[in-house]
Amino acid sequence: MIKRTVFFISDRTAITAETFGHSLLIQFDDVDFQKVTLPFIDTMWKAQDALEHINDAKEQTGQRPIIFSTIVNSQIRKMILSSEAAAVDLFETFIGPLEEELRVQPSLGGSSHHASAGDELDIRINAVNYALTNDDGITTKNYDKADVILVGVSRTGKTPTCLYLGLQYGIYAANYPLTEEDLLIEYRKIPGVLKPFRNKLYGLTVNPERLQKIRIARRPTGRYSSIEQCQKEISLAEFLYVSKSIPYLNITTMSIEEIAATVMHKSKLQRRIF
Amino acid sequence: MIKRTVFFISDRTAITAETFGHSLLIQFDDVDFQKVTLPFIDTMWKAQDALEHINDAKEQTGQRPIIFSTIVNSQIRKMILSSEAAAVDLFETFIGPLEEELRVQPSLGGSSHHASAGDELDIRINAVNYALTNDDGITTKNYDKADVILVGVSRTGKTPTCLYLGLQYGIYAANYPLTEEDLLIEYRKIPGVLKPFRNKLYGLTVNPERLQKIRIARRPTGRYSSIEQCQKEISLAEFLYVSKSIPYLNITTMSIEEIAATVMHKSKLQRRIF
Repeated sequence: MIKRTVFFISDRTAITAETFGHSLLIQFDDVDFQKVTLPFIDTMWKAQDALEHINDAKEQTGQRPIIFSTIVNSQIRKMILSSEAAAVDLFETFIGPLEEELRVQPSLGGSSHHASAGDELDIRINAVNYALTNDDGITTKNYDKADVILVGVSRTGKTPTCLYLGLQYGIYAANYPLTEEDLLIEYRKIPGVLKPFRNKLYGLTVNPERLQKIRIARRPTGRYSSIEQCQKEISLAEFLYVSKSIPYLNITTMSIEEIAATVMHKSKLQRRIF
Repeated sequence: MIKRTVFFISDRTAITAETFGHSLLIQFDDVDFQKVTLPFIDTMWKAQDALEHINDAKEQTGQRPIIFSTIVNSQIRKMILSSEAAAVDLFETFIGPLEEELRVQPSLGGSSHHASAGDELDIRINAVNYALTNDDGITTKNYDKADVILVGVSRTGKTPTCLYLGLQYGIYAANYPLTEEDLLIEYRKIPGVLKPFRNKLYGLTVNPERLQKIRIARRPTGRYSSIEQCQKEISLAEFLYVSKSIPYLNITTMSIEEIAATVMHKSKLQRRIF
């Protein structure tokens, strides 16, 4: 198998370089990529170190490393791009054309971003605390503050989705578990505590076989993880969604970020943070 | 102020297009960007709808919209790029040069990514559950499974950072709160439960003024949120970090993702998911 060293480099977290680079690299199944992330390369000293690291990799493997970078500072960027690697800087590639299109000079500081890091932290922390406080129906008294309330039977991904919505988007997401009792006693009715907020509801569902697998991991035996119980709860929940026109999503083949992005889009929610 | 409509478009979540596009757009302070995200544009029908949406924006504002897109499917990409907008597709820009460099044909399915969506979900859910179960020292018996254990006084960002490490990287992160009692009774000693895991420890700290602000938001009066108490706890904690060579980080001006990326990098942790 062909081997290549890949560097993800940024003067910030390198998360964009990592996720974008990964989405390109998975198109090349036949190559074994050795991945190295170098975040916070924000001084010329660090850039010099990174450069040596890259050129060492070239020497050791006999192959040009590949670089995905997002570097705002042009001096640092030039130094990294002077390496012996095949380098693509996302920033360099797009800032010029964008400047031309907008006919405005870029500030090129990155400072306007960092100025709000404290605010960003507050927004994220508040949104995560909201998700934790209003997880799993623990309390139902803060639903007026919710941007969205996820509903679904046990183990349909409600909690991680709410946390992801808080951390990634700054969204206030509560979640309420639909129990068999809820679903049977109030047959085809929206549980009383949720009724005033029905426009905020978003349902999650999953194929019964997948649900059973997830539940077995939590509690290997008993009714909770039997296929009959999973089928019953799922069909009652989906019945409720359809009959009450609650938008819903089958998460069987989805990742958390796909679930969260779908809820954002379908519920027409706006990011509070980037 | 100049106004421009910006579209973030993808056949997946569009999160990469959003975060990357945002990092470019903040360089242009003088432009008021109206942002629209169109995720999951994965059929020609949806692409057609998106195209109309884009061209409508052109007509309504009299200005070419700007598009940041990451679209794997070439037919869909071509349709989006045929719009009247100033469009940059990250995928299109980089896949060609990468193919040339690797001398390997790309699979261009995106399927290799989606095949593992279930595994990704499991990894994220397990990591988030780990963070929740081992939050705030609730239990200390699973530290052998931790990739990292964050320590710090109350309100230094431990919980959201652990959750972010779980959701973004699939990392198992526990956290343990350093109380005044811990810090005074066991003066300059690592609390007993943490001792066997000292190589996994990572300390968080923050400027006392900032800590006070965060604490006041939680509990407006009392010793907990007095500046004296904040100063005392912070200096005791930093004393511990320094005297026991625990790596640590001052988060005062950092965002959650910067804190998480720093912990990943300094603790040499490897992503489990992208």
